[in-house]
Amino acid sequence: MSLEFSTNTFEKEKIILAGKEEYIVGGGRHLFPLLPKAFAEIHQIGVIGWSSQGPAQAQNLRDSLAGTNIKVKVGLRKNSSSIPLAEKAGFTRDNGTLGEMYEVISESDLLILLISDAAQAANYQQIFEAIRPGTTLGLSHGFLLGHLKNIGDSFPETINVIAVCPKGMGLSVRQLYEQGKEIHGAGINSSFAIHQDVNGRATDYALAWAVAIGSPTIFQTTLESEYKSDIFGERGILLGAVHGIVESLYRWLIRSGHSQEEAYINSVESLTQPISNMISKNGFLSIYISLTDAEKETFKKAYSAAYHPAFEILMEIYDEVASGNEIRSVIEANNRHQRFPIGKIDGTEMWQVGVNVRDNRRPEKVSIHPVTAGVYIATMMAQVDLLKEKGHLYSEIVNESIIEAVDSLNPYMYQKGVAHMLNNCSMTAQLGTRKWAPRFDYIFCQQAFTALDDNKQTDEKVFENFLTNDIHQALSICTQLRPSVDIFG
Amino acid sequence: MSLEFSTNTFEKEKIILAGKEEYIVGGGRHLFPLLPKAFAEIHQIGVIGWSSQGPAQAQNLRDSLAGTNIKVKVGLRKNSSSIPLAEKAGFTRDNGTLGEMYEVISESDLLILLISDAAQAANYQQIFEAIRPGTTLGLSHGFLLGHLKNIGDSFPETINVIAVCPKGMGLSVRQLYEQGKEIHGAGINSSFAIHQDVNGRATDYALAWAVAIGSPTIFQTTLESEYKSDIFGERGILLGAVHGIVESLYRWLIRSGHSQEEAYINSVESLTQPISNMISKNGFLSIYISLTDAEKETFKKAYSAAYHPAFEILMEIYDEVASGNEIRSVIEANNRHQRFPIGKIDGTEMWQVGVNVRDNRRPEKVSIHPVTAGVYIATMMAQVDLLKEKGHLYSEIVNESIIEAVDSLNPYMYQKGVAHMLNNCSMTAQLGTRKWAPRFDYIFCQQAFTALDDNKQTDEKVFENFLTNDIHQALSICTQLRPSVDIFG
Repeated sequence: MSLEFSTNTFEKEKIILAGKEEYIVGGGRHLFPLLPKAFAEIHQIGVIGWSSQGPAQAQNLRDSLAGTNIKVKVGLRKNSSSIPLAEKAGFTRDNGTLGEMYEVISESDLLILLISDAAQAANYQQIFEAIRPGTTLGLSHGFLLGHLKNIGDSFPETINVIAVCPKGMGLSVRQLYEQGKEIHGAGINSSFAIHQDVNGRATDYALAWAVAIGSPTIFQTTLESEYKSDIFGERGILLGAVHGIVESLYRWLIRSGHSQEEAYINSVESLTQPISNMISKNGFLSIYISLTDAEKETFKKAYSAAYHPAFEILMEIYDEVASGNEIRSVIEANNRHQRFPIGKIDGTEMWQVGVNVRDNRRPEKVSIHPVTAGVYIATMMAQVDLLKEKGHLYSEIVNESIIEAVDSLNPYMYQKGVAHMLNNCSMTAQLGTRKWAPRFDYIFCQQAFTALDDNKQTDEKVFENFLTNDIHQALSICTQLRPSVDIFG
Repeated sequence: MSLEFSTNTFEKEKIILAGKEEYIVGGGRHLFPLLPKAFAEIHQIGVIGWSSQGPAQAQNLRDSLAGTNIKVKVGLRKNSSSIPLAEKAGFTRDNGTLGEMYEVISESDLLILLISDAAQAANYQQIFEAIRPGTTLGLSHGFLLGHLKNIGDSFPETINVIAVCPKGMGLSVRQLYEQGKEIHGAGINSSFAIHQDVNGRATDYALAWAVAIGSPTIFQTTLESEYKSDIFGERGILLGAVHGIVESLYRWLIRSGHSQEEAYINSVESLTQPISNMISKNGFLSIYISLTDAEKETFKKAYSAAYHPAFEILMEIYDEVASGNEIRSVIEANNRHQRFPIGKIDGTEMWQVGVNVRDNRRPEKVSIHPVTAGVYIATMMAQVDLLKEKGHLYSEIVNESIIEAVDSLNPYMYQKGVAHMLNNCSMTAQLGTRKWAPRFDYIFCQQAFTALDDNKQTDEKVFENFLTNDIHQALSICTQLRPSVDIFG
């Protein structure tokens, strides 16, 4: 795949990732004065929904467009329980920035649809009917395209369809936007996609939207590539795999003689602090280099043992997403929630121990555990390699597999455990984690930890692929494009 | 759903299961003399494939039809690695009972297609082209119908399409057939389905086929109801759930202070021996009644804690099967096996401990563990209740959820562990177990064992539903229709 775009308002920049040219736009507050030009025909931006992305994007857009003639108006169902929350954030009927969902849909020139995936699937016909011809429909996720493909339907032909997809959960989109007031470039990167462009203005709208929500780097994708990598990525290393990794590691550490607290520290704390931070700042190789010789050997063994099992489950996830199965599953799961609400995942010993560890943190006790690092990085690299095979662009791969993990998501697991991280993500992501974490757990127990316990030799070819992987260069370029951020810093 | 059928050759019998009339045919060796009449127009039965069901059904059919003019001929791919195995069982080119697959397909009057589900999906067009009009296509599983529905195709209209589906793995179909020479009625029950009947003879063919492979009870279903309950059932209590139950129970028992050996004995050995045997002979209530007062309380708590979590995963499985997702998944998994063969599942500590326990068995040490019984029976009852909701007939429910588990499958786990049980099942079943066992494991750890550890009170309504469930009467009738068997007896 190769993509290009042209913009009348912003400057695009050529970068070379792993030897391949890509074009990006760098964001930043200095570009806010350009927003009215880029949004020239847009008088009202409707933001529909108030769950994960809604609050963040509505507030960021409003703040970035303050002082212009462009109104940001939130649309919610008549009796939505989110109305008080939107009002608390300043979107009220009285000041004309809150309205009934379908009214806001038909009034708006740019309509950003941020209701849940299942709600999009259930209500898209009525929504399409309410949209005026010439409107721009904005999505932050390609799920709806996947659903339309599954059922043989399509978007109305008379509208623009664009996407701006922040590579981080809603909370982080708001939190880093606010940090961005002080730290130039703090923010969550976004991909953008132009799916339909009926008036030739779609690219500028998408870029302006991404700039306005505070993305430091804006890279191009297609709506199809986006939903595949996104639904895949959250089931993989971003949420599903990392959950399965720490659960299985915790038990393996206990079996290896660690106390409960030590096991928690060497799995969750090690992964979400020094390992994530070092990847964010200096990439993978810096972690390997920082280890002692003995730890290097352990890391190599753990990496070798975990890479193939992780790759196998990741291949399965990718197939399930590409075939439409995951999208069908999400819709059916939502129907079942009428009867059984989604269950609690952190009542188990491990996460109870975690509460205690957090209450008595001694950061000097936390170091890079070589097995934790080996298993985690092997899984991340397997995801990177699979996305390369599937033809995704490096910008998407780096953001969807690495930056989103270490900058946006892992910090929430560090802060309050796995449920805190998950509950701030979409229902699609929560369901995917419940589905795939146990699969990673089982395959690691059955194949990776058994190999490690048997002291199986390093697979030199697998490890060579790690050392020489072209993702290191791509990550390093992407890292230079934005400051390293600490979301709770 | 209600079904009826008429037969010119066999006697049908009315039974009342949970207040509802069903018709069955009782099998037995005394009916073998009727087979030529029932198979009147059938001169050759082709059995295609030699994996799980193929060897069992080909040999049973040949033995039951010995002395008649009906030839049983095995069809295999030209270079199939199974040829020596078929020859060893007496199917040879020299005696005219072994041939190339497509030749056997076009020669046969009744064509029993027992190649793997994925191979059926990949080759069905060529197979349909090779079938002469007027032939009877026999399936032992409705998977192909599910696949045809997924891709919008159908069976040729000029042929009969029937199914005889043994409710047990191939090995058990052969093993109990051989026991049946001594013990009247030993055998694996089958469901049958008449999907297309172009000459009005399909029902007699199906019943004769089921009698000839040694089924003691033959009950009716539809091809669609069969594949839904079958693919669902093996992902549920038959394989997937029972695997997840013993894995999570083993760890819970260790955490509760048991030694490794005790934990294995109280999970796997307890479940596959006294619990399974007692259900097979006397039903569920006998287990509860056999417990002491204190154990009864523990059983009730475990049952209450496990029923809803199990039901939740079972609902998901049923939806995934009914939507076609599971069928698509199986086909894609088979494609991936070119690259990563299906992995080993019993290298972990638990199953290594199991080897040791089996080598030093002391049956007097094995008793009904009330938590194991509570969790297992709750899951089985949840499966029963869900199949009732979905409109399956009681005969199918009892066989697919209870009899197949305790008489055909659990004995293999008892004999040599979980992999031995699984490896003798279809690839569709093996894949389903790898997919769903971890889900049961996680939800039990997150919801059932946490409730148990917190000493949560019994859910009296859930337990009342157990005590008064109409499945007890249905199981008791089905149990009376066949002798209780010990497959390794």
